[in-house]
This record gives sequence, structure tokens and C-alpha cells, in this order.
Amino acid sequence: MSSFQEKLERRVTSINSLLCVGLDPHEQELGSATPDAAFTFCKTLIIQTLPYAACYKPNAAFFEALGDEGLKVLRRIVEEVIPDDVPVLLDCKRGDIGSTAAAYADAAYQHIGADAVTLSPLMGWDSVAPFITEKYSSKGAFFLCKTSNPGSKDFLELDLKSNATLYEYIAQLVGQKWSSQTPFATLGLVVGATDPVALRAARKAAGNKVWILAPGVGAQGGNLSEALQAGLNAEGTGMLIPVSRGISKAENPSATAKELQEQIEVCRKQVREQTSLSSASSILPYQKEFLEFSLEQGVLKFGSFVLKSGRTSPYFFNAGLFATGTALFKLGKAYASTIMNSSSL
Amino acid sequence: MSSFQEKLERRVTSINSLLCVGLDPHEQELGSATPDAAFTFCKTLIIQTLPYAACYKPNAAFFEALGDEGLKVLRRIVEEVIPDDVPVLLDCKRGDIGSTAAAYADAAYQHIGADAVTLSPLMGWDSVAPFITEKYSSKGAFFLCKTSNPGSKDFLELDLKSNATLYEYIAQLVGQKWSSQTPFATLGLVVGATDPVALRAARKAAGNKVWILAPGVGAQGGNLSEALQAGLNAEGTGMLIPVSRGISKAENPSATAKELQEQIEVCRKQVREQTSLSSASSILPYQKEFLEFSLEQGVLKFGSFVLKSGRTSPYFFNAGLFATGTALFKLGKAYASTIMNSSSL
Repeated sequence: MSSFQEKLERRVTSINSLLCVGLDPHEQELGSATPDAAFTFCKTLIIQTLPYAACYKPNAAFFEALGDEGLKVLRRIVEEVIPDDVPVLLDCKRGDIGSTAAAYADAAYQHIGADAVTLSPLMGWDSVAPFITEKYSSKGAFFLCKTSNPGSKDFLELDLKSNATLYEYIAQLVGQKWSSQTPFATLGLVVGATDPVALRAARKAAGNKVWILAPGVGAQGGNLSEALQAGLNAEGTGMLIPVSRGISKAENPSATAKELQEQIEVCRKQVREQTSLSSASSILPYQKEFLEFSLEQGVLKFGSFVLKSGRTSPYFFNAGLFATGTALFKLGKAYASTIMNSSSL
Repeated sequence: MSSFQEKLERRVTSINSLLCVGLDPHEQELGSATPDAAFTFCKTLIIQTLPYAACYKPNAAFFEALGDEGLKVLRRIVEEVIPDDVPVLLDCKRGDIGSTAAAYADAAYQHIGADAVTLSPLMGWDSVAPFITEKYSSKGAFFLCKTSNPGSKDFLELDLKSNATLYEYIAQLVGQKWSSQTPFATLGLVVGATDPVALRAARKAAGNKVWILAPGVGAQGGNLSEALQAGLNAEGTGMLIPVSRGISKAENPSATAKELQEQIEVCRKQVREQTSLSSASSILPYQKEFLEFSLEQGVLKFGSFVLKSGRTSPYFFNAGLFATGTALFKLGKAYASTIMNSSSL
């Protein structure tokens, strides 16, 4: 079985989408709050949005509120309606000690069939490990970090003695320490799209590998473009934009999902272009020195060169011309600087 | 319908118990992890422990892990097995934004029939308000504060810029601000029995009105007596001691529950005696002065006095003998000092 990471990346690439469609069968949206009505609501929404949905995010609360049959409806939607190659992120925000967390993990992955979950990190590593280690080490977990509701001020924005805010500290711990404790799981953060400053800070603290789930576009007024600019990683990915009522309540949910997917793609392209521009303009001194030396030695030439492969290249790099002690010394120095500047050290 | 507070206080008083029996139908404890086996497990445990249980605490995780029928089993246990006058605290540690929290609250109170819940406070006031305001303003909520697992070090023990730890800040916000925002709900904190220092700090920060749910006695090695000394309020109440496997796995669950209830009672008596001793030994100067003056004037006499009611009293206080200007001045001064020293000012 594919890991969540593989499944998600394949899906994101194949349909060019970071849109995550929320499945929230809220009683106000159902004609009647019955299990059947909820099943139909979700099925309809999935059929309407399938070409544009990188993943689906059912929220456990709305199924639990349906009563005895609620979780059965949720399982059936995952099993019978959502295609196997589309990842399911169960929004359940669980968090409890060891054996209890293990029971929640079994419920989410084995019973409901989810590929990933949202979790509260509040009780620490041993309360989340059962969701992302051992038998579930290829699953995914998105941790509450800086949510988009007013109450995020109560605790998540508190300043710690270390000068970071609590949410920055969560981002750092998840992105650095927890990631290293379970290298095959996909770790993510929930950071509201309404707060680009927090998105940027969380991305910086957590690193490029972590995924960010950024709710709040649409209903809560989050600006899609600003959020993506702030939260996407350097490769223009690593973010999921969940939209629930913004799609389900739209006059034409399918068209709205398509529009969102396209808007997201436009922003991703911009970010990728900016990244390549900014990386060109941010050449470090040792890199500049090496390029100048390479030009001086005739190692690097610009022009029009037909390569062995038959392709025409605008430059040619002949490393064989680093043929003196001085040249090899400078080459070695450039290698050493590259290693010392590597962000993975 | 009674509020959680009334129901709990009536129960605590009528059976003299602060024991909270956990209902955790863990698959390892069930012969087979089926809904029927879970129902029987819980029913048996309830019958064995009913005379000693101030309340029952089913943990949602173990029911969810049973699959489609799990939450139905939980509802049936609350509806059919637990008597109406015994409060049910659903251990679910939920926490999500407004409309989602409202759906969880409906599931917990209306569907499952709980009187109170455990919650994660991480997302702030608007994420917990739906459980304890408006139509649910007479319910109860216990907030994660300082849990007994190793991971509580990751976030709950962090030092804030204000010098408090995060858990102390949670205790203070819940006990002071949140309590005042929903005066009829019962607010509580989850603080591990394994950490008397944290229990004492949480009680101090939250005040006397808040209930503390202190897991970790038995299995996790928490010392019952130390925990109660640290966490009980001045009246020797305001604490619940949850025990799950410590009872369900005991050779004789009924005898173990009885023993725990009795041990708790012994500690409560000690705490109440200490409280009255320490208040006697902490007579303030103005009180001492007033007592001495009363003795001097013959207002206060010790001996054996038959009162109008026929009862015999070891002292007699005849305020009519404050009959001079000086005496009235001293009486007035004592009143003034009492008002100025009142903690409610």
C-alpha cells in the first residue's frame, strides 16, 4: 500500500492541484440530519469536485453528531465513494496518551480508512507517536499550530521565554525533531490562511519538508494568493488549501472547485518563478568568486554549443581545464564552501 | 434536568466518594474486541463499582476503535446501565472551531448522553464555548492542563515570557476568566496525580471553585495521599480521582474500588482537619486583640452554658456587654478590619 506521501504527491502532480475539499455534512446543509442525507451530500460533493481535489478532508465531528450510524457513514464514504488514489485526511484533532492514542489511530486508519489525520500536539510526542510510528509510520499527521479562529490568541500566540511564540515553537519541534523521529511519515501543520505572517514564520521554523494545511480561504476571508506566497515551500508545493462550505454552498460546486484549483496553480507558478529569480540574484560571494575564476580559466564559456547528445546549450563547462595546483585548490575551496553552506548540516 | 455541578455534588456527598471509574474497553481487556464484549465489560464493571463511583468516565477512543457500532455501545451504556443520578464524564479531549465544536458537543451531550467532557484548550475560548455556554451552560468541561505522560514536557511545561508555565497559565485562564464567562457550567482541569507540585500550582492559579481530574494513581505510580493533599480545595473536595485499569484489571474490582474510595476519604478528612487547624493557628493580630478585649469585658466566657435552645455550649458570647463608647469603638474597629481583610474585596 502507498504511503500518504506517495499518494498525495502523485495526486498533486497528476491533477496539478493543492485543493483539499472538506466533507462537512453540517446539519444546516442537509435537508434532514440523517445518515442517508449525509451520505448523499458527501457523495454528490465528491462527484462534483473529483477532477480538482488533491485530497478529501472529512471532519469527524459532523459524522459523530449524526448519532449511532455516523461513523459508519464516514467509513462507507471513504470505502465506496472516494477513489483509492485520492488521499483522505481525517480532520479529528485527536490527542491523548499512549494506549488511548493507539485506539484513536486504529479507529482512523483501520476502521474509517483514512491516510492521514489532524492532531492536537498539546500532550506531546508520546500522544501523537501512535499515529505516525510503527505500523502507521507511512501515514500523515497535521498538527494544530496557528489556527484561524479568534481563540488562537489565547494560547497559540503566547510568547515563550525563548522569545518564540508557542506556534513557532510547535512548527519548529514538528519540522525538526518530530520529523526526524519518524522519517517516512508525512508531518504537517495547521496554519490559518488568514495570517500570512504566521504562515511565513511557521514555514521558516518548520523547514521545506513539512506540509501546511491552511484553512480560512473564502468563508473566513483569507487571501488565497497571499497565503500561498507565504506558505508554499521553495518548490511551490507543500501546502494544502482546504475549502468546505466555500464549495459545498456555492451555486455550482464543480465550477467553484475548478476555479480554486486554477487560482492556486497561478499562484504556484508565480512562486516558482520568484524562487528561481531570487535564487539567481542571491549568489553568495564564494559562488561568485568560483564563477569568475571558471570564466577566467576558460572552464565556463557562454555561447552556442552542440553537445554530444545533439542538444544545443547556451553554456559549456569543461572541468578538465582545472589542471593546475592553484585551480584544483580553488575548486576544492568551492566544494568546501558548498558543504559548509549546506542547509542540511 | 440537573446541572452537572448539582448531580456531581449530590453524588459526592451521598456516597462520600471522589472516585471516578474509567470505562476503557481496551481490546486487550476484552476476550474479543466486539461491541457486545465491550458492552458486557462496561456493564460488569459498573455493577461491581457502583456503590463507590462518584462518576463514570468512558473514553471515546476505545469505543471508536470498535468500528461501526462503537458509539452506539457507548450510548447504550450511558442510557441503559449507568443510573441517572450518577454523572457521566465523557473523556474525548475534543477541540475545534465554532460550528465543529458545536457538532462535537451535540454528539457528546445529546447523542451519547454525557454530563461533562474533557477538552483540549489549545485553540482557545471559541473552540470550547459551544460545550459550556448557551444550551449547554449547565454542563461541565475538564481542560488538559498538566498531563501525567512524558510528553507533557514538550509544551505544557514550557516557560512563558510572563514567567508562568503554560500549564499554570491554562489553570489561571480557566479558573479566572473562563469561569466568569460561564458561571453555571462546571470547569475543571486535568492535572496528573503523579505531579503534586503541578497540582498545587494549578489549584493556586485556578482557585477553589475549579474541579481537578487527577489521573495517574496506581498504574502510573501517582501517590494518592500526596495528590489529594496538593489538589483538594480548602473544603476537602473539588477533585476527582479517575482509575481505569487499576480497577478493571484487579482481582476483585469491587473490593479495589471500595478500598480506593476509603483511602480517598481518609485523605479528605486529614485535609479538612489541617485546614481547620491552620485557620485556627493563623489568627490575625486584630482578631487576637478583639478576642482578648472580649474576654476582658466579660463578653466572651468559656465554661459550660445551657442555651435557650437547651443545648450545652462550651462558650458564651454576650454582645450586649459592649456597652461603653470605648467598647463600641473597638467593636467597630474589629468590623472594619474584618471587611478590609476580606478576600472577596
